[in-house]
Amino acid sequence: MKPIILASASPRRQALLEHLHIPFTVYPVEIDEHFSSLSPEEDARRLAKEKTGALLCRAPETASTWILGADTIVVLDEEKIGKPASLEEAERILNCLSGKQHHVITGLALYAPGNAGSIITAHTVTVIRFKHLDAGERAWYLSTGEWQGAAGGYRIQERGGFFVESISGSYSNVMGLPIHTFYGMLRSLNYPLFS
Amino acid sequence: MKPIILASASPRRQALLEHLHIPFTVYPVEIDEHFSSLSPEEDARRLAKEKTGALLCRAPETASTWILGADTIVVLDEEKIGKPASLEEAERILNCLSGKQHHVITGLALYAPGNAGSIITAHTVTVIRFKHLDAGERAWYLSTGEWQGAAGGYRIQERGGFFVESISGSYSNVMGLPIHTFYGMLRSLNYPLFS
Repeated sequence: MKPIILASASPRRQALLEHLHIPFTVYPVEIDEHFSSLSPEEDARRLAKEKTGALLCRAPETASTWILGADTIVVLDEEKIGKPASLEEAERILNCLSGKQHHVITGLALYAPGNAGSIITAHTVTVIRFKHLDAGERAWYLSTGEWQGAAGGYRIQERGGFFVESISGSYSNVMGLPIHTFYGMLRSLNYPLFS
Repeated sequence: MKPIILASASPRRQALLEHLHIPFTVYPVEIDEHFSSLSPEEDARRLAKEKTGALLCRAPETASTWILGADTIVVLDEEKIGKPASLEEAERILNCLSGKQHHVITGLALYAPGNAGSIITAHTVTVIRFKHLDAGERAWYLSTGEWQGAAGGYRIQERGGFFVESISGSYSNVMGLPIHTFYGMLRSLNYPLFS
């Protein structure tokens, strides 16, 4: 199989690609991750595409390789939530998520080499329901430090999973790489998955 | 935190406990895993409880330790499906899952030491929808060998995840250990989770 460049430093995305047995290298790019006035779905696709485009600009030799960009946004009551910048922000977000339903959206951008090269984008939405968290649970969870570097301030595949009553949609999407959507993109661009 | 004995050899359950930062040791027990005439939910709880009970019988010294037993069953059109015993059976199951919805049920049994010791059981149901699989996809998936040792003949967290259109409920349940349910059991038996 052809290696894919992952334009993201997320260890969760790397773990998912490993489980899929897809060869990849990591080449994170820094972009301005501020949200725009677009809808969350469009914003997630835009940021994923900007990451892929930024890599092609900064390292033109990557144009001969497959590239995957991704961006994950948490949405609660129409507010877009990224990664908390501080413990205080993580606490505020956790209080907001407690006992409620929120959405997680990951945008993907896949670049295929050949001819002029083409980029396609897609997004996936998952609905998450959190249990009500009492003061002890909140204090304990913040003390684990899992909020750091996580969109929405929790990690579903670690201790944050204790608090997730149910999900509806894709789980891997919440980890940052919706596998089924990614599979459809690979197949539509004729990535040699089965060889 | 107190160590828990996991009465299961499943590497997926071990990985989940690791992510939860719960100390554990593995002590798999072999029991007769044939299904009974009970409902799938009751059967999953029964088998989980039998695993815990078998360990307490065979290794009485474990009575002073927390013990977790688990059993996962796939249900399609009211048929209970365990782990395929052969490539042919895996192929038959994959054909049945293709393009349809099925249920995954994990039963848990948690034993707490102290006094006379107590066992509680619980189960969790997740609904999974598979995409329609064409002949190439089926042949390729069977060639990966992922069906071996997996209830229902696929691994959602590996390449089987390509085919999962959506899930409703708990994801960790499909991996064999429903985290949120487990959390409720730990708290109800006063496991010292936060210390």
